[in-house]
Amino acid sequence: MSNFLTSFSHDFFMQEALKEAQKSFDAGEIPVGAIVVHNQKIIARAHNMTEKLNDVTAHAELIAITSAANTLNFKYLTGCKLYVTLEPCVMCAGALAWSQISEIYYGANDLQRGFSILTHSNLFPKKIKIENDILAQECEELLKKFFKKLRR
Amino acid sequence: MSNFLTSFSHDFFMQEALKEAQKSFDAGEIPVGAIVVHNQKIIARAHNMTEKLNDVTAHAELIAITSAANTLNFKYLTGCKLYVTLEPCVMCAGALAWSQISEIYYGANDLQRGFSILTHSNLFPKKIKIENDILAQECEELLKKFFKKLRR
Repeated sequence: MSNFLTSFSHDFFMQEALKEAQKSFDAGEIPVGAIVVHNQKIIARAHNMTEKLNDVTAHAELIAITSAANTLNFKYLTGCKLYVTLEPCVMCAGALAWSQISEIYYGANDLQRGFSILTHSNLFPKKIKIENDILAQECEELLKKFFKKLRR
Repeated sequence: MSNFLTSFSHDFFMQEALKEAQKSFDAGEIPVGAIVVHNQKIIARAHNMTEKLNDVTAHAELIAITSAANTLNFKYLTGCKLYVTLEPCVMCAGALAWSQISEIYYGANDLQRGFSILTHSNLFPKKIKIENDILAQECEELLKKFFKKLRR
């Protein structure tokens, strides 16, 4: 029985995430791996594929979220746990927030890009240019129209 | 000549983003559209598809980033502009930061989910459980190993 309990520890699941990270490593990608656990079962495995897919959004966590939702055939991951080898970045933290996942466990801290930087709100480089209110009314109108229709 | 200039105004491009948002609307999705512009040419068009794809990460901006990178055959969107009908959420803001996109123009504000909430750092609901330092050393080691190898 003790073996059974041991096999479902945080360390057990993080080892599985590490196996995924190893796949990234082997492929020449920054090695980050993630798994999603539901009812003590691993329902998604993913690793960073930004280089292979030529896509900055192909982080382990995002792929894991998409994959887990696909397995569950449900958009939200309520009741699920994410194990990821590196502290999620702001993008992944945002995605995890949308996913309504219940628990997040991570390994290494990411002091530069981890979501903990949020309180400093230095998400964007200074050189970026951001403007709002461009056709704001039309944009807002369409949204309002949508929700009005939805409520009928 | 004035027509030429008019056709490449912020309003012109935001109208194109709105056409995308309309596609979401027509499909019963929250209507948000985005386009990516490079050298005054639209290189990516996308609209929110979270319901269709059963995927909380399928926001217009994320699809647009992936699509633009695919068109450019380059991971980074330096020199590109994003036009999006709604203020990007934290996930999309994080993705945009990774993409190294140069300019972002958005229409409606999103006071509840827009990236402007970052300064309040209330990204996650209170009920979420977050822990770190689980096998942190192993996770960190693999990263270190990767970068050490990379620098050789």
